[in-house]
Amino acid sequence: MTTTADQPGPFSSVTVLGLGEMGTALAEAFVRGGHPTTVWNRTAAKARALVERGARQAATPREAVAAAPLVIVNVKGNATAREILESAGADLVGRAVVNLTDGTSAEARAVAGWAAEQGAEYLHGQILTIAPGIGRAESVIFYGGSAAVYERHRSELALLAGRGTLVSADAGVPTLYGMAVHGTMWGTLNGFLHAAALLSNEGIEVTRFLEQAAPSVSALLATLPSIAAEVDRGEYATPYGALRHHLPSIEDLVRESRARGIDHELPEYTLDLVGRALDAGHADDSYSRLVEHFQAR
Amino acid sequence: MTTTADQPGPFSSVTVLGLGEMGTALAEAFVRGGHPTTVWNRTAAKARALVERGARQAATPREAVAAAPLVIVNVKGNATAREILESAGADLVGRAVVNLTDGTSAEARAVAGWAAEQGAEYLHGQILTIAPGIGRAESVIFYGGSAAVYERHRSELALLAGRGTLVSADAGVPTLYGMAVHGTMWGTLNGFLHAAALLSNEGIEVTRFLEQAAPSVSALLATLPSIAAEVDRGEYATPYGALRHHLPSIEDLVRESRARGIDHELPEYTLDLVGRALDAGHADDSYSRLVEHFQAR
Ligand SMILES: NC(=O)c1ccc[n+]([C@@H]2O[C@H](COP(=O)([O-])OP(=O)(O)OC[C@H]3O[C@@H](n4cnc5c(N)ncnc54)[C@H](OP(=O)(O)O)[C@@H]3O)[C@@H](O)[C@H]2O)c1
Ligand SMILES: NC(=O)c1ccc[n+]([C@@H]2O[C@H](COP(=O)([O-])OP(=O)(O)OC[C@H]3O[C@@H](n4cnc5c(N)ncnc54)[C@H](OP(=O)(O)O)[C@@H]3O)[C@@H](O)[C@H]2O)c1
Repeated sequence: MTTTADQPGPFSSVTVLGLGEMGTALAEAFVRGGHPTTVWNRTAAKARALVERGARQAATPREAVAAAPLVIVNVKGNATAREILESAGADLVGRAVVNLTDGTSAEARAVAGWAAEQGAEYLHGQILTIAPGIGRAESVIFYGGSAAVYERHRSELALLAGRGTLVSADAGVPTLYGMAVHGTMWGTLNGFLHAAALLSNEGIEVTRFLEQAAPSVSALLATLPSIAAEVDRGEYATPYGALRHHLPSIEDLVRESRARGIDHELPEYTLDLVGRALDAGHADDSYSRLVEHFQAR
Repeated sequence: MTTTADQPGPFSSVTVLGLGEMGTALAEAFVRGGHPTTVWNRTAAKARALVERGARQAATPREAVAAAPLVIVNVKGNATAREILESAGADLVGRAVVNLTDGTSAEARAVAGWAAEQGAEYLHGQILTIAPGIGRAESVIFYGGSAAVYERHRSELALLAGRGTLVSADAGVPTLYGMAVHGTMWGTLNGFLHAAALLSNEGIEVTRFLEQAAPSVSALLATLPSIAAEVDRGEYATPYGALRHHLPSIEDLVRESRARGIDHELPEYTLDLVGRALDAGHADDSYSRLVEHFQAR
């Protein structure tokens, strides 16, 4: 098999630091896309398959960083990402570093600030897919940091995810976007699995429920824009679907769960949130009023 | 104004027992649809506006039940619904009772069983909209019970909600469907409001996030069919997006929430669920494995 790595063409060189499950998928996408790709990993053996497909393996992070204008780093934790970059020393100057390592916003910003001091350009990316999703049209990566890096390397980054988006000049924002998506997802999944427990307890196939209730289920996200607008304005009064309308339905779900002996902690959590908002005089407010509970210190 | 109530035409008569916020909306839909409508409410004064629009007010539930083959009941609680029907005595025989009162599945079944003993046909309905949604094309009511009643009164029921669906011959099932939709909704809303708290803490407009993250947010429900299938089969192994992939992201969200001083109870709830599943050896299973937590007694 001939690879583009041994036929240097119009494709710019890319370096990938870190070849775990995700880093390997990232490096593969560049190799597949025809970019001369240099890789480095602490455990060198993990580079073998990539080298067979045409990637070049560097002996040190410094050698890897020197090999390409675009340096991708993806390891476990931003402290490690920074350590690896640090060992490249002065070779970082002028490089475009794209850090795709997960962590908190403060951790992303710390690497960004440090990289700027080293004279590197910096972009942080939050990957919203698992490794097999890398390279797919529908996959999402949120980017934050240098718009120049994002624009200059658009074609390389497009190989990783069809839906890459620069969401902020702030390197800390992509991780917040990722957390916002994931946090909403876990909420949905927990609520749905409680529902699934209720249905399966009655012997109802959850698949059948989803089919018959499709219009209601697919409408579940329809209220998010109005909720978002209420939160942004800090105004929660609503003539329709106020907290007082939610209360009796939550009480019914708690009673049903208890009567069946399935989990009642999750509906009671919601009942408690709504009950406290009603006690505070918010009966005629939208459910969005509960954001204050989550905002409170 | 001429009304169809004083011009008896091809429209069948309907009775509505209970004129609270919801019952009034139901009766209005029948009046608007041209059906001779008889109404009764404990507090008689609440019928005034309906009578002005052409409804006939009955002095007792018995008189109201005697006035139409289709009897809708919508009050606060199924014990009350049954008491009101009970006071109609022998006039219930042969009537089609459609009870749209919220409660648990056991309460719905108790009214259904009792109504059958009285010689009435019975259908239970779970309304998934608030009063202003009655009569709209997109509104949903789940029905369970007599298919004969549902078919015979399709045109009347269609006036209440464009998306009425007979989901079961069992009068207890509609309320479970409603709870499953609502429970998923509260999960989604709680997760999203926590996310909104995170974003607003950083000064990010939630509306802007929703726009920029639209592909990720609109994909949130895409996994429900596969999760439903896993729960139905009781098989949770997955090569992609296993619980071990969720763990580090949840840990990041907990750390971020704590660092910002916003609520960390909700992400810690999820962390605890996932952590316990990992401890039990389910690292390579789908998130659907957590249904066992909710099913457990
Ligand atoms: N896997 C996914 O599907 C996925 C999805 C979204 C995001 N991510 C994110 O991608 C990043 C990598 O995840 P992964 O799943 O690829 O993890 P992984 O398979 O566990 O690999 C971890 C990587 O980090 C390296 N590493 C860990 N500690 C190190 C140290 N002290 N010094 C040098 N290198 C070190 C490992 O090197 P060794 O090989 O030498 O151990 C390996 O390259 C994480 O931020 C993760 O949250 C992963
Ligand atoms: N409102 C909504 O948007 C909405 C949405 C979905 C489902 N629902 C469901 O619809 C049903 C009615 O709700 P609602 O909002 O209309 O309630 P509501 O405005 O509080 O009205 C309650 C109704 O129940 C009657 N009632 C209560 N206790 C009674 C008793 N002991 N004897 C006789 N009648 C009694 C009331 O009569 P009086 O007028 O004499 O007090 C009134 O007609 C409930 O199951 C509710 O969960 C309502």
